[in-house]
Amino acid sequence: MSQLGPVALDAMGGDHAPQATVAGAVAAVREGFPVILVGDEARLRPLIPAGVDLPVHHVAQAVAMDESHPVAAVRAAAIPSVTATMRLVKEGRACAAVSCGHTGAAMAAGLLVLGRLPGVERPAITMVVPRTDGGRLVVLDLGANVDCRPTHLVQFAVMGHAFAHAVLGMAMPRIALLSNGEEPGKGEERVREAGALLAELDLPFIGNIEPTAAFRGGCDVLVCDGFVGNIMLKTVEATAEVVTHIIREELLVHPSAKAGAWLLRPALRRVRERTDYASQGGALLLGVGGVVVVGHGRSDETAVRSALRYAARCASDDLVARIEAALRGLRVAP
Amino acid sequence: MSQLGPVALDAMGGDHAPQATVAGAVAAVREGFPVILVGDEARLRPLIPAGVDLPVHHVAQAVAMDESHPVAAVRAAAIPSVTATMRLVKEGRACAAVSCGHTGAAMAAGLLVLGRLPGVERPAITMVVPRTDGGRLVVLDLGANVDCRPTHLVQFAVMGHAFAHAVLGMAMPRIALLSNGEEPGKGEERVREAGALLAELDLPFIGNIEPTAAFRGGCDVLVCDGFVGNIMLKTVEATAEVVTHIIREELLVHPSAKAGAWLLRPALRRVRERTDYASQGGALLLGVGGVVVVGHGRSDETAVRSALRYAARCASDDLVARIEAALRGLRVAP
Repeated sequence: MSQLGPVALDAMGGDHAPQATVAGAVAAVREGFPVILVGDEARLRPLIPAGVDLPVHHVAQAVAMDESHPVAAVRAAAIPSVTATMRLVKEGRACAAVSCGHTGAAMAAGLLVLGRLPGVERPAITMVVPRTDGGRLVVLDLGANVDCRPTHLVQFAVMGHAFAHAVLGMAMPRIALLSNGEEPGKGEERVREAGALLAELDLPFIGNIEPTAAFRGGCDVLVCDGFVGNIMLKTVEATAEVVTHIIREELLVHPSAKAGAWLLRPALRRVRERTDYASQGGALLLGVGGVVVVGHGRSDETAVRSALRYAARCASDDLVARIEAALRGLRVAP
Repeated sequence: MSQLGPVALDAMGGDHAPQATVAGAVAAVREGFPVILVGDEARLRPLIPAGVDLPVHHVAQAVAMDESHPVAAVRAAAIPSVTATMRLVKEGRACAAVSCGHTGAAMAAGLLVLGRLPGVERPAITMVVPRTDGGRLVVLDLGANVDCRPTHLVQFAVMGHAFAHAVLGMAMPRIALLSNGEEPGKGEERVREAGALLAELDLPFIGNIEPTAAFRGGCDVLVCDGFVGNIMLKTVEATAEVVTHIIREELLVHPSAKAGAWLLRPALRRVRERTDYASQGGALLLGVGGVVVVGHGRSDETAVRSALRYAARCASDDLVARIEAALRGLRVAP
């Protein structure tokens, strides 16, 4: 897929940057995914092994809070690396952008530089999470937007549907609204109004759904306000922590179960991998004029590599054009 | 605590009623907690063992949907058993009410018969859940109210605080607002406004909190809108299911871990007990003029007995008077 151009990586963003970002980029390049690093060349170059084709787009660091020569620093400093990363996509020099830095900054830079797609009032943070039936669940919005209006939820539904179809290859992804009950009269006002709007559209909308049914496979695209979605996501992480805590505690209390403790270690690691969604390779910012993957701040080399591959795949699946087309359809339909 | 009078139990409410309700009541009576059953005497009497002092307050069943003699049925039928249960509290013939029937019906009957305490616009469903630090977390509202206004959240905070103090014996329960970030600027509009209001009151309010921090022990009273709280609660249940599913799957896939499978069974049962909050004995409906415990529809004998003991304890701790006093303080404070 090199005809698409490389994925631009904000090499300075993330708790373990630039070591983890460069290492993840090197791994991606070795797998055949071209990458361009964005950041301070003097710091990045020494981390790139000889013989690896990994170009660097140089931008100086932002001015530090304790900078003692602010004027000189401002003259030297260019735009932040995350903004420069988005610009490479805007200018067609990269097919997608990845940042594991500050999520809010990545969202702001993506929106500022790439703009919103026609028909999108608010871009949405979108993730794919595993279901107990072995399927995958697309969830949006997970925190980009609070105080959503019903029309925002409708736009999320259209974008999530297009993504599930184009990137995940689902023939007819079933859309549902996250709610506290399945009946149409259930839910907060925003959900009830969004349900009425979605029922009018030519989409496989199946109504309200509760978390348990959604995780079991009751729908493929789960739509919610960003406040509720973010709390749901963090509750999943918190509960996984509580449950593994209880299991460890129980195994220590009951001597007969102690033997199971070490046998269980791989299983508990797998729980962490499958429920700590944030470290899995990132979330998509759907609704901006380019592919933007926002990785978790904790991302290690593996997570960075996953994020880069994910971004390249979304670009090669023509995600943005497909979402744009779906949104065009939406505006005509009602 | 028999000077308080018995706890009134809606013996007809619940998936396993009246067998489970009567069995739970018998167990409670044998432990010294007086109970009065409310329901169809002809069906209840045969279930009560000889020598157990368990009075029955007779009410005919509601008219069935397929009733062929509606007029006669209406003449014969009295009020629904759940309403009759609340009436016993209102009339001072019982110290508290318990129902494991339809949650919405129990809430409606509680509100209708017992009324709201002065200063309460909306009663709140309140639960106590375990934290990983061994402490307990009071959470409200868990589904009684959607589309809450900021002042409703403030009232929930005051009621939750009074409950944690009076019933759980916490010296200074720390109150927090459930949010998608801890900074005061985070959260949906309702949360930001409630935070500003709570900061003005003479309460140990510590600000916003995320689910992970709350479950780890970052606060004692967690306040949220009923829509968000209900989804959080159901996400906990769903995640616990997903996690135990993953663990079972892993134990089957890896031969070396298979031996751990049966060793782990008690631990997984304990996870279910500690995360399936709904079956633990019930939720309190705080803010009505009496102690009302709403048990889960699935309640078995043990859950019914727990709910009855919980209700008796709340009554003997003078919960309603204490919440009323706390609310009086609230109206004066700002």
